[in-house]
Amino acid sequence: DLPLALIAGPCQMESRDHAMEVASELVAITDRLGIGLVFKTSFDKANRTSASAARGMGLDAALPVFAEIREKLGVPVLTDVHDAGQCAPVAEVVDVLQIPAFLCRQTDLLLAAAATGRVVNVKKGQFLAPWDMKNVVAKLTSAGNPDVLVTERGASFGYNTLVSDMRALPIMAETTGAPVIFDATHSVQQPGGQGTSSGGERRFVPVLARAAVAVGVAGVFIETHPDPDRAPSDGPNMAPLSQMEPLVRELMAFDAIAKRRGG
Amino acid sequence: DLPLALIAGPCQMESRDHAMEVASELVAITDRLGIGLVFKTSFDKANRTSASAARGMGLDAALPVFAEIREKLGVPVLTDVHDAGQCAPVAEVVDVLQIPAFLCRQTDLLLAAAATGRVVNVKKGQFLAPWDMKNVVAKLTSAGNPDVLVTERGASFGYNTLVSDMRALPIMAETTGAPVIFDATHSVQQPGGQGTSSGGERRFVPVLARAAVAVGVAGVFIETHPDPDRAPSDGPNMAPLSQMEPLVRELMAFDAIAKRRGG
Amino acid sequence: DLPLALIAGPCQMESRDHAMEVASELVAITDRLGIGLVFKTSFDKANRTSASAARGMGLDAALPVFAEIREKLGVPVLTDVHDAGQCAPVAEVVDVLQIPAFLCRQTDLLLAAAATGRVVNVKKGQFLAPWDMKNVVAKLTSAGNPDVLVTERGASFGYNTLVSDMRALPIMAETTGAPVIFDATHSVQQPGGQGTSSGGERRFVPVLARAAVAVGVAGVFIETHPDPDRAPSDGPNMAPLSQMEPLVRELMAFDAIAKRRGG
Amino acid sequence: DLPLALIAGPCQMESRDHAMEVASELVAITDRLGIGLVFKTSFDKANRTSASAARGMGLDAALPVFAEIREKLGVPVLTDVHDAGQCAPVAEVVDVLQIPAFLCRQTDLLLAAAATGRVVNVKKGQFLAPWDMKNVVAKLTSAGNPDVLVTERGASFGYNTLVSDMRALPIMAETTGAPVIFDATHSVQQPGGQGTSSGGERRFVPVLARAAVAVGVAGVFIETHPDPDRAPSDGPNMAPLSQMEPLVRELMAFDAIAKRRGG
Repeated sequence: DLPLALIAGPCQMESRDHAMEVASELVAITDRLGIGLVFKTSFDKANRTSASAARGMGLDAALPVFAEIREKLGVPVLTDVHDAGQCAPVAEVVDVLQIPAFLCRQTDLLLAAAATGRVVNVKKGQFLAPWDMKNVVAKLTSAGNPDVLVTERGASFGYNTLVSDMRALPIMAETTGAPVIFDATHSVQQPGGQGTSSGGERRFVPVLARAAVAVGVAGVFIETHPDPDRAPSDGPNMAPLSQMEPLVRELMAFDAIAKRRGG
Repeated sequence: DLPLALIAGPCQMESRDHAMEVASELVAITDRLGIGLVFKTSFDKANRTSASAARGMGLDAALPVFAEIREKLGVPVLTDVHDAGQCAPVAEVVDVLQIPAFLCRQTDLLLAAAATGRVVNVKKGQFLAPWDMKNVVAKLTSAGNPDVLVTERGASFGYNTLVSDMRALPIMAETTGAPVIFDATHSVQQPGGQGTSSGGERRFVPVLARAAVAVGVAGVFIETHPDPDRAPSDGPNMAPLSQMEPLVRELMAFDAIAKRRGG
Repeated sequence: DLPLALIAGPCQMESRDHAMEVASELVAITDRLGIGLVFKTSFDKANRTSASAARGMGLDAALPVFAEIREKLGVPVLTDVHDAGQCAPVAEVVDVLQIPAFLCRQTDLLLAAAATGRVVNVKKGQFLAPWDMKNVVAKLTSAGNPDVLVTERGASFGYNTLVSDMRALPIMAETTGAPVIFDATHSVQQPGGQGTSSGGERRFVPVLARAAVAVGVAGVFIETHPDPDRAPSDGPNMAPLSQMEPLVRELMAFDAIAKRRGG
Repeated sequence: DLPLALIAGPCQMESRDHAMEVASELVAITDRLGIGLVFKTSFDKANRTSASAARGMGLDAALPVFAEIREKLGVPVLTDVHDAGQCAPVAEVVDVLQIPAFLCRQTDLLLAAAATGRVVNVKKGQFLAPWDMKNVVAKLTSAGNPDVLVTERGASFGYNTLVSDMRALPIMAETTGAPVIFDATHSVQQPGGQGTSSGGERRFVPVLARAAVAVGVAGVFIETHPDPDRAPSDGPNMAPLSQMEPLVRELMAFDAIAKRRGG
């Protein structure tokens, strides 16, 4: 059992400078704490609740920024892809391709992501049972790519609410054999819950992250922003950047016990 | 309130002859019954549970068959599209473009479908509340296409099960203003419920169709096959073609009462 | 398949005069329509959301009123019992003992109700699968009482919401062998949804009742009140008494088709 | 924040000797670990899935055993009550009266339990939202008894399955003001899932207990048995007695971090 890793960054790449600023700060925090970091941000929000919502910088503008962050800060980067055609160009500048939850059963997208040879992180659909992720992972590994991560981000629970079933973490680990990530940001989302945008409850991010780390995960995914209430997307769910260091420090303490290295 | 319409056909286009045979039989049945028919079949099953499952004939082989069915049988046809690039070529030969439930929030796909000017039928995601479909419909209508249908096909209910909330039918009608279709086939699906394929319970197709028609819908969607147990996909949910005529006749009787024309 | 029966009345017995007035009006309506009536009202609301909410007249005051309604109006009456000790005295004046949903697994209450020899109507717990009602019914029948009804009143669906799974109606009929009732009033309840009381959406009572009758049930349960917005309990879910006649007439038309006597 | 407490014992009081044996062993374990123990066992299983299932020793036989355990072992004891009349006699020999989840809204039972002056532990119904427990607690405190505990034991999630929403723990703490217990045994129950009995998955007991303790709870409730597979009830969910010591030790380590005393 390797120590906990952190996948973090702002939901959207808002600008080159914004992405560099957040990435730099996260590198500084994780260097102090001694935890591995993968920097995450999205170039396109392809499934916003409303068509008029901001979608991000777009692929062409974002790729050089990903390249610059990797090169200047020495940190691996992760971003999500939405159709098969994006996989190859994105794979040239990022380390991990992420498959969004709604798209986790789109065979062509999975095969194109697998074909890049990059690590692929697949989010479990809100509509999927944890044991069904083995079929999703098999689509990737049978295409010749063994480097797969699976991410829990909540299951549908009535309308406009998700629930995080902590049993899903060991079930996915056992049935897929892949490292399991817990996405504490989207697990507190309230899909569609604000009429024309999705709501969320930021205060539950540390609650669910603590629970997942105590159960035992390979990594935790937390979106963060210097000023979440002004972020163009997922603001209600993102943790303030200023609160990341104490939160991650605490998660590392739980992780040490969970993995029996300090219990 | 217009009388009930029927969207029906085999899950996959298995071959030109198979599609023609089923379509001809459905035209004969619906002519006898006096109900409007839209013939449905899929050229690609893009989100099968397993990557090794049969996916259908593919776009290039299917388009001439759609054209032939329309021309020879005089019946409108519907098929589903999975990425933005498919919309324009498919729209040349079909009357209704259908957006799969998992993809109902993919903005680019919705906008490309809307841009064709064809009727667009959007299935409600298993993870969406009925009132949230107004945002989905707004993506289409704000793109200049007022011809939108919305389809209920079940909501996630625990793992490997869907539930059909009959309240969703009037809620979607009121909040979107679009005609509402009830998909009796996929509502009885048990997603992932057979390990490497999705299960289902065909015996509940008439149960849920009766309920939905009594509540009041514009149309009912029923996949059908001459021999469902040998169908390459969705066999457990499809109604045998031989049982369609009595089923549809009964639904028409419920529809007459529901719409106060015969009550 | 016998024709549809109606179980109806005000949620609470508010006073002798109030109960007589509603019962008389329901007898008049059902005589005009030609449908069997069981008059339902509760002498005690034993599980209100809040301890300060009105609970009804109580057992001692209510029993003579039940007796008077039966005698003067010639209509069978139904009421719910909450502990084993109530069963025998209540059974002296009512025709059907009803087991509340929360209590459907309390063995002592079920056995005491069965021992009276009266018909027992058990509501399915919001936490129970429809196939699990066979164990509940077996507790009653194995105690020597074959006269059992089972009632669907919604299943938990996330928080503060119920969903009516129409598949539950045939499943309960098949697995228990008992006549199945659909409770259209409590199925639209929003448990706890108003802070210190339960909410509900009265407008969905006819929606769900139509669906259930089209699927096929032995009876439908609808609470009604001359002025629901002033009722001491379940006001948000109760149908206005003035709307009962057209609603029940419509349900009878659906029932005739569902049971193939008029289709 | 006080250190974690443990509520533990066998589901049923099977005999005087069996109860004494398990209680003695738990006292020894918790003395070694330095954690407070409340011994739990039931004298009657009043809501078994099937009427023919074993129900326990019964009230009269059990009361002297509770008294003996308290006196000889010096450990507080907890048991559940099922109707108002049981509260006073049970309160004479036990320290904590527990209200079963199905009965958490039965006003008379709550008031009778409150009137004893003993601590009352109310389990949250599988059908209740966590914020709705404030009404339940208010029924107890408004009756003059401030000594209330609330217990999370899973929420209905589709059929035959519960899910443990870890957000419920802080929500209940905030909205009720009462100490919150996590019941790791019944949270892994599969209600009705074995046809004529409830199933469960014992392997998830430590998973969910770790998650809850990391989130932060006043106590954890774990049923245990020397030989769970031969236990008359809840065997599939109970932890083997031989595994309790390492499990509780680990939970105490998580608790120390969660409460910032050792983080």
